[in-house]
Amino acid sequence: MPVVTIKMLEGRTDEQKKAMVEKVTEALVETIQAKPEAVTIIIEEMPKNHYATGGVRASDK
Amino acid sequence: MPVVTIKMLEGRTDEQKKAMVEKVTEALVETIQAKPEAVTIIIEEMPKNHYATGGVRASDK
Amino acid sequence: MPVVTIKMLEGRTDEQKKAMVEKVTEALVETIQAKPEAVTIIIEEMPKNHYATGGVRASDK
Amino acid sequence: MPVVTIKMLEGRTDEQKKAMVEKVTEALVETIQAKPEAVTIIIEEMPKNHYATGGVRASDK
Amino acid sequence: MPVVTIKMLEGRTDEQKKAMVEKVTEALVETIQAKPEAVTIIIEEMPKNHYATGGVRASDK
Amino acid sequence: MPVVTIKMLEGRTDEQKKAMVEKVTEALVETIQAKPEAVTIIIEEMPKNHYATGGVRASDK
Repeated sequence: MPVVTIKMLEGRTDEQKKAMVEKVTEALVETIQAKPEAVTIIIEEMPKNHYATGGVRASDK
Repeated sequence: MPVVTIKMLEGRTDEQKKAMVEKVTEALVETIQAKPEAVTIIIEEMPKNHYATGGVRASDK
Repeated sequence: MPVVTIKMLEGRTDEQKKAMVEKVTEALVETIQAKPEAVTIIIEEMPKNHYATGGVRASDK
Repeated sequence: MPVVTIKMLEGRTDEQKKAMVEKVTEALVETIQAKPEAVTIIIEEMPKNHYATGGVRASDK
Repeated sequence: MPVVTIKMLEGRTDEQKKAMVEKVTEALVETIQAKPEAVTIIIEEMPKNHYATGGVRASDK
Repeated sequence: MPVVTIKMLEGRTDEQKKAMVEKVTEALVETIQAKPEAVTIIIEEMPKNHYATGGVRASDK
């Protein structure tokens, strides 16, 4: 605990994901004093045609 | 805000998904006066062997 | 199926939620030919201090 | 209702998933008296590079 | 891992929830050989007016 | 996009949550070059009797 889910569009490199997980964990340790080993992070990628704002999908913009 | 997640079985066409996102956004604007640009919709598709009701997966029915 | 989760800020009336559930279900029946009885909708409300965009919570804006 | 989401690393066999759905449904029927047909289970698989604990992804361990 | 989220209507006793968590964990250990200590379960309760099937909320049935 | 959900036990102060949202947004901007205004963060708090690891709830430990 905490359990963090990050939903984002496809396209980031593995290096970016690696760095993101490290930095987000650090942010939680620093601000809510979470124990690092207790932080679970799940990345969920979305294709552009599965993500919409304002009724229009990223693939249709 | 609001953030809507729609989990559904694989198999719909891109046109259906496009129409769905439009109509669901309209429904939220009409009923809870959400601002269209503030409505986020995420579509998450499932294969039949990852969705079950009554202890039986769609792939086993 | 589909299973829809709608996360939104607290503050809507019960009538608004009732209408929202009806209209979103209609939207799914109309656009992806879901069977009405198969549509599950879950509403999840958030207080303003639990929702943020751009690093700032709605309660801090 | 209930709606159960099981997020797990890729790699289980279809037989394991089939058994898991049965046993989890049984567990809910037995302990919270859920009606079997009302139990919805969604399996969501993650690749190793999308799951992290302690700031380190399973793919980097 | 796995991370299990159980969304259910309010109203179960604490004893039922305790038993549910035990039995669901057992089910995962038995069927997908998860390590018990690696199984995370999150219970999320819903009021009747936040859960709908067929366009009608449990509170309106 | 990205949409981040942080599930954590109840008990943090409002100041901690404020700082957490800022730092997590910074982490995403820095590592995956997300635009700050595009980052959505949702905090979801759990009581101890709704969070379990190893088949035992935090409230029963």
